[in-house]
Amino acid sequence: MNERIHALELPAAGLSEATQAYFAKCEEKLGIVPNVLLSYAFDEKKLRAFTDTYNDLMLGDSGLSKLEREMIAVVVSSINHCYYCLTAHGAAVRQLSGDPELGEMMVMNYRAAALSPRHKAMLDFSAKLTEEPAKIEESDRAALREAGFSDRDIWDIASTAAFFNMSNRLAAAIDMRPNAEYHAMAR
Amino acid sequence: MNERIHALELPAAGLSEATQAYFAKCEEKLGIVPNVLLSYAFDEKKLRAFTDTYNDLMLGDSGLSKLEREMIAVVVSSINHCYYCLTAHGAAVRQLSGDPELGEMMVMNYRAAALSPRHKAMLDFSAKLTEEPAKIEESDRAALREAGFSDRDIWDIASTAAFFNMSNRLAAAIDMRPNAEYHAMAR
Amino acid sequence: MNERIHALELPAAGLSEATQAYFAKCEEKLGIVPNVLLSYAFDEKKLRAFTDTYNDLMLGDSGLSKLEREMIAVVVSSINHCYYCLTAHGAAVRQLSGDPELGEMMVMNYRAAALSPRHKAMLDFSAKLTEEPAKIEESDRAALREAGFSDRDIWDIASTAAFFNMSNRLAAAIDMRPNAEYHAMAR
Amino acid sequence: MNERIHALELPAAGLSEATQAYFAKCEEKLGIVPNVLLSYAFDEKKLRAFTDTYNDLMLGDSGLSKLEREMIAVVVSSINHCYYCLTAHGAAVRQLSGDPELGEMMVMNYRAAALSPRHKAMLDFSAKLTEEPAKIEESDRAALREAGFSDRDIWDIASTAAFFNMSNRLAAAIDMRPNAEYHAMAR
Amino acid sequence: MNERIHALELPAAGLSEATQAYFAKCEEKLGIVPNVLLSYAFDEKKLRAFTDTYNDLMLGDSGLSKLEREMIAVVVSSINHCYYCLTAHGAAVRQLSGDPELGEMMVMNYRAAALSPRHKAMLDFSAKLTEEPAKIEESDRAALREAGFSDRDIWDIASTAAFFNMSNRLAAAIDMRPNAEYHAMAR
Amino acid sequence: MNERIHALELPAAGLSEATQAYFAKCEEKLGIVPNVLLSYAFDEKKLRAFTDTYNDLMLGDSGLSKLEREMIAVVVSSINHCYYCLTAHGAAVRQLSGDPELGEMMVMNYRAAALSPRHKAMLDFSAKLTEEPAKIEESDRAALREAGFSDRDIWDIASTAAFFNMSNRLAAAIDMRPNAEYHAMAR
Repeated sequence: MNERIHALELPAAGLSEATQAYFAKCEEKLGIVPNVLLSYAFDEKKLRAFTDTYNDLMLGDSGLSKLEREMIAVVVSSINHCYYCLTAHGAAVRQLSGDPELGEMMVMNYRAAALSPRHKAMLDFSAKLTEEPAKIEESDRAALREAGFSDRDIWDIASTAAFFNMSNRLAAAIDMRPNAEYHAMAR
Repeated sequence: MNERIHALELPAAGLSEATQAYFAKCEEKLGIVPNVLLSYAFDEKKLRAFTDTYNDLMLGDSGLSKLEREMIAVVVSSINHCYYCLTAHGAAVRQLSGDPELGEMMVMNYRAAALSPRHKAMLDFSAKLTEEPAKIEESDRAALREAGFSDRDIWDIASTAAFFNMSNRLAAAIDMRPNAEYHAMAR
Repeated sequence: MNERIHALELPAAGLSEATQAYFAKCEEKLGIVPNVLLSYAFDEKKLRAFTDTYNDLMLGDSGLSKLEREMIAVVVSSINHCYYCLTAHGAAVRQLSGDPELGEMMVMNYRAAALSPRHKAMLDFSAKLTEEPAKIEESDRAALREAGFSDRDIWDIASTAAFFNMSNRLAAAIDMRPNAEYHAMAR
Repeated sequence: MNERIHALELPAAGLSEATQAYFAKCEEKLGIVPNVLLSYAFDEKKLRAFTDTYNDLMLGDSGLSKLEREMIAVVVSSINHCYYCLTAHGAAVRQLSGDPELGEMMVMNYRAAALSPRHKAMLDFSAKLTEEPAKIEESDRAALREAGFSDRDIWDIASTAAFFNMSNRLAAAIDMRPNAEYHAMAR
Repeated sequence: MNERIHALELPAAGLSEATQAYFAKCEEKLGIVPNVLLSYAFDEKKLRAFTDTYNDLMLGDSGLSKLEREMIAVVVSSINHCYYCLTAHGAAVRQLSGDPELGEMMVMNYRAAALSPRHKAMLDFSAKLTEEPAKIEESDRAALREAGFSDRDIWDIASTAAFFNMSNRLAAAIDMRPNAEYHAMAR
Repeated sequence: MNERIHALELPAAGLSEATQAYFAKCEEKLGIVPNVLLSYAFDEKKLRAFTDTYNDLMLGDSGLSKLEREMIAVVVSSINHCYYCLTAHGAAVRQLSGDPELGEMMVMNYRAAALSPRHKAMLDFSAKLTEEPAKIEESDRAALREAGFSDRDIWDIASTAAFFNMSNRLAAAIDMRPNAEYHAMAR
């Protein structure tokens, strides 16, 4: 926490025991406490709302695999050119897929990947929702259903793409810096 | 809940007592249960994460007034042409400000309003963060500080604008329908 | 005429009897003299050319109903975020349709409305003509014909969408203010 | 009138004597009847509203020279890639200026021309009004005033740029064809 | 070479005999030394690399006619609004086709031309490659193959469109001025 | 050369001895023959024109360091989302700078890097030239001169940014695949 993790001077707050324990668990499992968590930690209420949302979305039950959710995260972040999320979630795609090139293609241009029709539909929807949300129509949902997604899956695709449109913008707004450790992970 | 509130067929879920009580409180205070809550209610975990985030963001302590946060919500939703959020939060601006025209200007084009320098800076930042998040630079944060915002306020402006970039996209993705009651409120 | 109706200082001109009579008729029929007419009134020649064009376009014989023409007006103005035209013509859609929600959907995002194939085709064409006129091709006209429009109707759709691309820009250029009365009309 | 002048089949109408006389005068003065007039001629009411507007705008009294108004016409049409208007009004710039290269620069990219500060301001305003009308602010009008334009001139700049945003779209919508004679004029 | 041919002050260089001979041949064949060559001439190595690329691309063996390659050049330059390339290659289209109107349509909006399916496919691909290269997919190549192009032809279409995306940008960056002679050629 | 290196079936060509030697040298120095060279190798004339241009541009004498030229390459490719160039030149930035994070920032969003005023000006110019070449004006060149660049340097910045706007599009058009070796280089 010595280095700058974002551009704002926020009020320092002592961390509750619960948060200290949570961060210790992060370090144990991931080797780091992600800077996004440290960023929110100035206000534990905000931190908890964020982690509750995030953990349900990215780690909870879903018809989408964790890798699929990370692929959506990275594709949205690629369109928005979000340095923080591309770094952190690019690493996650490399790790979960065991395929570093796949991670790079999600970061750079998902259309370069040899995607299954399922993944093509999922990422095309996420890209359109990111770029021109006002133009989503029933035919866009129909394309997901044709690719085999249930309506419950569509909720998850939409929620994930929507969430990273939020995170990308918070990160951009405050110049949030990714932990240096991500860069070398799973190369 | 007889009418369609969005385009997806989601698994019906019985509501817990806590949620039923929460919805009863909504009806009492607002006259309605906002459809966004009913949309999330198929999964109480998601509902709670959403309401925790939302209530802290829009109703919690902040250097921004509730009206200012609603103004950001509507300006972001105007750029994204989000029918749900423009309807619900347009009503909120009319209500909190007692100024129906202000609500309309936020919906239609915030540049038409005679804004204070503080509000101009706040909304210009929110608009840029919505339209081209990749191009936010230190000078954009500096413009907020010059307009009198603290770094803590910048977090709140950023979080609010970012949040509605998420909500707008979830609403667009599933064609979420606003409660009919909003239209006539505070005209 | 006490309040500012636009941002320019234009030479005051005495109104001819004919114009005074016309404005009196407006007040009688609409309850107001629309500020767009007062804006043009500094030069009666310009005023007359404008009203001749407008009245023929929006009120004259056409295969499009008056409501349909107003729907086009609002959809174009929504894309261009024109405060004046959204206010005035949003009111007209509410009034002519007796459906305030329809008016709101035209203002906010016409894709949120449950449109007939005829109206979908008509508004999709108007939106494309507004956003990327250079890309209109024969297939775009063919889509209108398939939706049941005659070539004469296509002229009227095109003329109406084109006209509001003009009006939106004049209003934006001079910050034309809508009459306050519009806001509460037909809610 | 043997060749196709646009893509629509419109009801043929006999021309009134007044219109025949007007077209004869066009032929005499210009050597042609511009196809835009023939296009409108299926309905004399529309034709007259159009010519009244056009003649006042482009030929009437104004603080802008006729050449300046034609420069605006071409710059707007260049952004909108309107074949009809670029052809007809590009010829007008060549003719009125006696400078074929100036005409070409307006068609291709006005920023390539060595413009006076007055013309730069005028065309920058017209370009912004064309590309992003929603973002015009008081500072844009102020830039015109600094370049020496009166408020009355601003009306004319705005009206002219707005008018061609209309004409470009009508021409695009119906694939209006320019008279062949324009191409070789004033080269 | 008395007049300014671009906005930079570059080190003057004596021309080698080979270059002098090449320029003499240009004057003999074209009546001019194109300013793009004079621009590169400050460094003969750069000049030679440019002319080797250019001559192979635009004049070498190809399944595309020289006119077709020039049409691509002009359509790309129209999207990029490149004054230099529109002037020089617009003249080339007029000359090679003997059809001045075709040249004008390529400059102004290729969609206004009555194109063969082959040329429509070729120019649509070139336009998409110019505007949104990241979105090219296999279906775009398939459309070219359906229009009768071989894979070798696709290379040439792609190379030509790509090359002018380079040349347009160099010309824009340094404000490269076209030789005045182009304007009147082949009108 | 067993794996697919792009999407086209091009005529196979025997490689001349000179080319074989050149490729051998590549393997020796870089460990690979870059796929872009293998792509061009179907026609040795095209290959030579490409390598002559490339080697002069990226390796020849210049006021820009090789790293600076690679930074421009990657920033342009990031805007265009070019998988091939981001992979190959992202590796080059990592290698030449010895700073893997710098490479990632150039790939993801150069605005996230703590750039010197020189590099900020250089990359801002390259980004604008990529995104809106038609809007480059004298003030853009002036900003480079203020940052200490000579006119000769401006040529090199412009040429490099322009070149990658070409290469990105050729790579996109034919789905050129980067050598797998790049991914792990200099991490």
